[in-house]
Amino acid sequence: QRDQWVRNITHCQKDHLSSKLISEKLPVDFVFSFTCLVCDHLLCDPVQSPCGHLFCRSCFIKYSYVLGPHCPACNLRCGPDDLVSPAKAFLSALQCLPLLCPRSGCGKQKHRLKELKNQVKVFADKEEGGDLKSVC
Amino acid sequence: QRDQWVRNITHCQKDHLSSKLISEKLPVDFVFSFTCLVCDHLLCDPVQSPCGHLFCRSCFIKYSYVLGPHCPACNLRCGPDDLVSPAKAFLSALQCLPLLCPRSGCGKQKHRLKELKNQVKVFADKEEGGDLKSVC
Ligand SMILES: [Zn+2]
Ligand SMILES: [Zn+2]
Ligand SMILES: [Zn+2]
Ligand SMILES: [Zn+2]
Ligand SMILES: [Zn+2]
Ligand SMILES: [Zn+2]
Ligand SMILES: [Zn+2]
Ligand SMILES: [Zn+2]
Repeated sequence: QRDQWVRNITHCQKDHLSSKLISEKLPVDFVFSFTCLVCDHLLCDPVQSPCGHLFCRSCFIKYSYVLGPHCPACNLRCGPDDLVSPAKAFLSALQCLPLLCPRSGCGKQKHRLKELKNQVKVFADKEEGGDLKSVC
Repeated sequence: QRDQWVRNITHCQKDHLSSKLISEKLPVDFVFSFTCLVCDHLLCDPVQSPCGHLFCRSCFIKYSYVLGPHCPACNLRCGPDDLVSPAKAFLSALQCLPLLCPRSGCGKQKHRLKELKNQVKVFADKEEGGDLKSVC
């Protein structure tokens, strides 16, 4: 099971958002293109490898620390210095994904990812109730 | 070779645009999500199956006429009446893809897909030089 040992490396269940929060029935390959190829969550602070694969920055760092400087998706040689930020056409699409609100009890059916911020927990820790509250 | 016999069904080489025209190094899975799962071109008048797969409308129709009412990607039962239009979040991203101009001799390095129109040939046939000219 890749799932379990990867989770033990990344520990990001509470930090990242699930792609199941996407509130519309979007094409499956389109949704897949917004998920981290290490942790399967919606990309958080995405970085792109020279081979064109995407990961959360923190997932790539943790993964390559344990398994060496290779792309987690295709195994091509790739270290932190080889990573670039994805192009704007991609980032805009990511930020505009329509999501269900992950806050329990929130009546809103839809938020954009950019409103929710990527790091739900970071904000939740910082302020009581979190930044999340301010958009609900 | 799937390629050749599919091309014999769809005959769309002159009607559709290649994903190689995309002018930025976008993530590979993001680019893949904009290609037709029958003809591999950039989607033209896309339709979505209940299983979440995407095809040019004309490719799906030609394919299912020859091979029956099944999804060309995953083989689930799917006829023309089961198709829906993809959600706006997807269509906007498709229409905003940055492309090299396919017109030979055009100096412009970038067009948005929405400017080029999907059906290059249709427009080229309609007006001398085509609709394409008006955006170059
Ligand atoms: Zn994660
Ligand atoms: Zn991740
Ligand atoms: Zn790779
Ligand atoms: Zn909310
Ligand atoms: Zn085609
Ligand atoms: Zn097609
Ligand atoms: Zn399918
Ligand atoms: Zn042009």
